Amino acid sequence: MKMIDLILKKRSGKALSPAEIHWFIQGYTNRIIPDYQVSALMMAIYFKGMTNGETLELVKAMIASGDVVDLSHIAGIKVDKHSTGGVGDKTSIVLGPMVAACGVPLAKLSGRGLGHTGGTLDKLESFSGFHVELDMETFVRNVANIGIAIASQTANLVPADKRLYSLRDVTGTVENHSLIAGSIMSKKLASGADAIVLDVKTGSGAFMQNTEDAFELARAMVEIGVNLGRRCVAVVTDMEQPLGKAIGNASEVKEAIASLKGEGPADLMEICMELGAQILVLSDVAKDTVVAKQKLQTVIESGKALEKLKELVAAQGGDPSEVDNPDKLPGAVHRRVLLADKDGYVQRLEAIKVGKASMQLGAGRATKASRIDPGAGILLHKKAGVLTNKGDVLAELFTNDDDRLNIATETLRDAYTIGEKIPETRPLIHGLVAP
Amino acid sequence: MKMIDLILKKRSGKALSPAEIHWFIQGYTNRIIPDYQVSALMMAIYFKGMTNGETLELVKAMIASGDVVDLSHIAGIKVDKHSTGGVGDKTSIVLGPMVAACGVPLAKLSGRGLGHTGGTLDKLESFSGFHVELDMETFVRNVANIGIAIASQTANLVPADKRLYSLRDVTGTVENHSLIAGSIMSKKLASGADAIVLDVKTGSGAFMQNTEDAFELARAMVEIGVNLGRRCVAVVTDMEQPLGKAIGNASEVKEAIASLKGEGPADLMEICMELGAQILVLSDVAKDTVVAKQKLQTVIESGKALEKLKELVAAQGGDPSEVDNPDKLPGAVHRRVLLADKDGYVQRLEAIKVGKASMQLGAGRATKASRIDPGAGILLHKKAGVLTNKGDVLAELFTNDDDRLNIATETLRDAYTIGEKIPETRPLIHGLVAP
Repeated sequence: MKMIDLILKKRSGKALSPAEIHWFIQGYTNRIIPDYQVSALMMAIYFKGMTNGETLELVKAMIASGDVVDLSHIAGIKVDKHSTGGVGDKTSIVLGPMVAACGVPLAKLSGRGLGHTGGTLDKLESFSGFHVELDMETFVRNVANIGIAIASQTANLVPADKRLYSLRDVTGTVENHSLIAGSIMSKKLASGADAIVLDVKTGSGAFMQNTEDAFELARAMVEIGVNLGRRCVAVVTDMEQPLGKAIGNASEVKEAIASLKGEGPADLMEICMELGAQILVLSDVAKDTVVAKQKLQTVIESGKALEKLKELVAAQGGDPSEVDNPDKLPGAVHRRVLLADKDGYVQRLEAIKVGKASMQLGAGRATKASRIDPGAGILLHKKAGVLTNKGDVLAELFTNDDDRLNIATETLRDAYTIGEKIPETRPLIHGLVAP
Repeated sequence: MKMIDLILKKRSGKALSPAEIHWFIQGYTNRIIPDYQVSALMMAIYFKGMTNGETLELVKAMIASGDVVDLSHIAGIKVDKHSTGGVGDKTSIVLGPMVAACGVPLAKLSGRGLGHTGGTLDKLESFSGFHVELDMETFVRNVANIGIAIASQTANLVPADKRLYSLRDVTGTVENHSLIAGSIMSKKLASGADAIVLDVKTGSGAFMQNTEDAFELARAMVEIGVNLGRRCVAVVTDMEQPLGKAIGNASEVKEAIASLKGEGPADLMEICMELGAQILVLSDVAKDTVVAKQKLQTVIESGKALEKLKELVAAQGGDPSEVDNPDKLPGAVHRRVLLADKDGYVQRLEAIKVGKASMQLGAGRATKASRIDPGAGILLHKKAGVLTNKGDVLAELFTNDDDRLNIATETLRDAYTIGEKIPETRPLIHGLVAP
C-alpha cells in the first residue's frame, strides 16, 4: 500500500477499506508513515468525512496500537464516564463516588489536556499526596477493592491517538465528528469498562457549540461503543454558562465535597443525578431511572457517597481528612470581588470567558509545561437569569499571584451581560442518545 | 503569525492576506514551518481554492525565495516557452531554433521531472557532450550571442517551489489550478524572459485531461504573467494521442532535426508554427500571425533554423555534426514490430499508454535515480483515424535491454483501439488564451 493512494482516495470522497485504515494507523504509530502525509489525509477527512464503518475500523486500529486494560475478573458491570469538557465541570468527582457507593465499579482513565482549569486529575491533585499515575495493577486492584479508581492514561494506552491528536491539534484537523468520536472512544474502549456514559456538552463554553453538532457527536460515539460490544449512552448537557458556582481546582473539589453532602448547586446535582441514573440502569443496578435516582439520593443522605470519596482519596495516597475539613485544601491569598455596575437580570454568563478569566488567575494550563495554581479560581454568586442590583457581588476571584487579578477581573466582567428583560433559560439537559 | 491560524482561515474558505502568504512561503523555505502544517494547508487549498489575488501573491513570494535571472541587458523581447507536458512533445527543440533564427532571443530554463520519456533536457543530452547544467553567466551569454539557450534550473531558482512541489507530490495536493499555475509561473518569471508562451496540453495523455480544466489553467497562468508585467499567451493543444511519430529521447531529437529540415510530421509542425507565430507577434518581430508564419517557413526553407540548432548544440558542448548526421545519435540494438491484429480504422491511440510503453522500454525515468536509455523508444506508423489492415505494422519498439520488449509491446498493443467506423477527429489546437 502507498499512503498517497489513501490520501487521493479519501480526497475524492471514497471510503478507505479496513485494511487501509489498519495499515495507516500501524504505519503512523511505528513512525513509518510521515506526519506530512497523515496531516494531508486528516484534512481530506475533515472535508470528506468518514463513514460509520470507517470510523469503527479507525477505533479498532487505534485500540490495537497499544495496551488494553483487563477488568474482566472484577465482578459486575464496570463503568467509565467521559465528559467532552466544559467550565466548572467537576461532575466526575461527585458522580464517581455516588455510583461506586451504589455498587457500580467505576474505572476511569483520563488525559490531562489543556484548558481553562485543570482536568479531573489536576483537581484531584488538590488533595495533598494524591497521585494519579497509578500502575495498571494498582488501578485494577483499587477498582476491585473499593469500587473506584481515577487515574491518568498510561503512555501506551492508544499511542496512535496520542500521535494523531497532537498532529491534528497543530494542523487544523481537530473538528471532525468521526475523528473526535474515534479519539475519545478508542481510549474509553481500551480502558476496559463494560459500560460507558458520555456527557456531551453543548453551548458557547463547550467544544461543540452547536447543539445539533453535539447530538451528532453523541450518536457517533454511542454507535462506536455499541458496535464494539459495550453498553453505551450519551447525555447532551448544557455548557452555555459554567456548571455549579466554583471554577478552579481546589475550589471545585470543595464544591464536589459539598455536593456529596447534599449541599451542591442545583445544576451540578441535576446533571450528576441524570448521569448517575443512566449508569445505574446501564449496569443493571436499577431497573429504571426513577429507582436509580432514589438509590443515588440514598447514598448521599446516608453519607456513603462522601465516604466513598474518602476511600478513593486514601487509596490513591491522598489525605482523606481533607474531605472532612475542606478548608485544609489549597486556598489563595489574593481575593477580589466583581460588582454589578447596573440593575437588571444576568442575561448571559459566557462560560468561555469565565474559563479564560480562570486561566488568567492561574487555574488552567496554557501550555503543557504550565504549572497550575490549585488555589486560584472563581466563585460565581450570580448566574444567568438572576436579578441583580447595582453594587451586588457578581463573583469573587482568587489567586496567589496578584499581578493576575486586573486582567482576569476585566475578562470576567466581560463574561457577564446584564439587561432589563428576563432572559430565556436554556435547558440543562438537552437530551439522551441511546442505541 | 501562527501557521495554525492560516490553516483554519483557509479551511473556512477565506482568502489569506498578502502578508500571510509571504510569511508562510518564507517560513517554509527557511525550514521554520514544518511540512505537516504546510501539507494540511495545501489540502485545504485543494478543497477551498485560492483567489487570483492570493495566487499572485504566492507567485511573488515564491519568486522572492531565491535567485532571479537578469536578461535585461540583452536587446529585444526575450522569450520563454513552457509546455505542461505530453508524450512525444519535442516542440521546444524545433520551436526554439525556429524563433531564434527569426531574431527572437529564447532563454529557457527547464526542470527534469519524471515522465514517460525524458524532458527536453534529457532529449538534448542525446547529443554527445551536450550539457544542460550551465552557470547563469554562460546561460545569459549564450542567449546574447546566439539567441538561444536551454538549460536546467539552478538549485536556487524558486527554492520555495522545489520544497512545495516535492511535498505536494507525496501528499495528494498537486491538482489545484492556482497551485499548478503558481508553480509553473514562478519559475518562468524568475527565469527573466519578457514574454512567455505556454503550451497547455489537454487529453488523456496530458496532466489536464479535461479541456475545460486546461483552459482554466491557461487563463490562470496568463493572468499571473500579465499581472506581473510580462507579455503572455497560452495555446491549448491536444494530447489525446502522442505528438509526432517518434517517442523516446534520441529518436525525438531525430524527428526534431527532420522537422527543422521541413520534413516533420504534420501535427508537430502545426503546433510549432502556431506557437512560433504567437512568439513572433508577442515579441514585435511580426505584426500578425500570418506574417509570422511566413517568417517561420522562411527560416526552415533557408536552413537557418537548422543552423541555429547546430549553434545551440555547439554552444552547450555538444557535437553539431550529429545534427547533420542524426544516425550518429544513440540507437538501440533490439527492435520489435507491433502488427495490427485486424482490419479497420485506428479509433484511439492513447498517449498515456504509449508513454507507459516508452517508459517500459527504458526511455523514461520512474524515479529520480533512474537512468534513461537514450536509444529506447517507439516509432508510430499508424496514428488515430488511419485505416489499417491486419498484419500492417502499427509501430516499432526499440530498446537496448531486450527483457523490456515483451511487456512494452503488450502495453503498446493496449494503447491501440481498432474498429470499423471512421473515428471522429479531435482538433489539434483547441484555442488561444490571451490577456
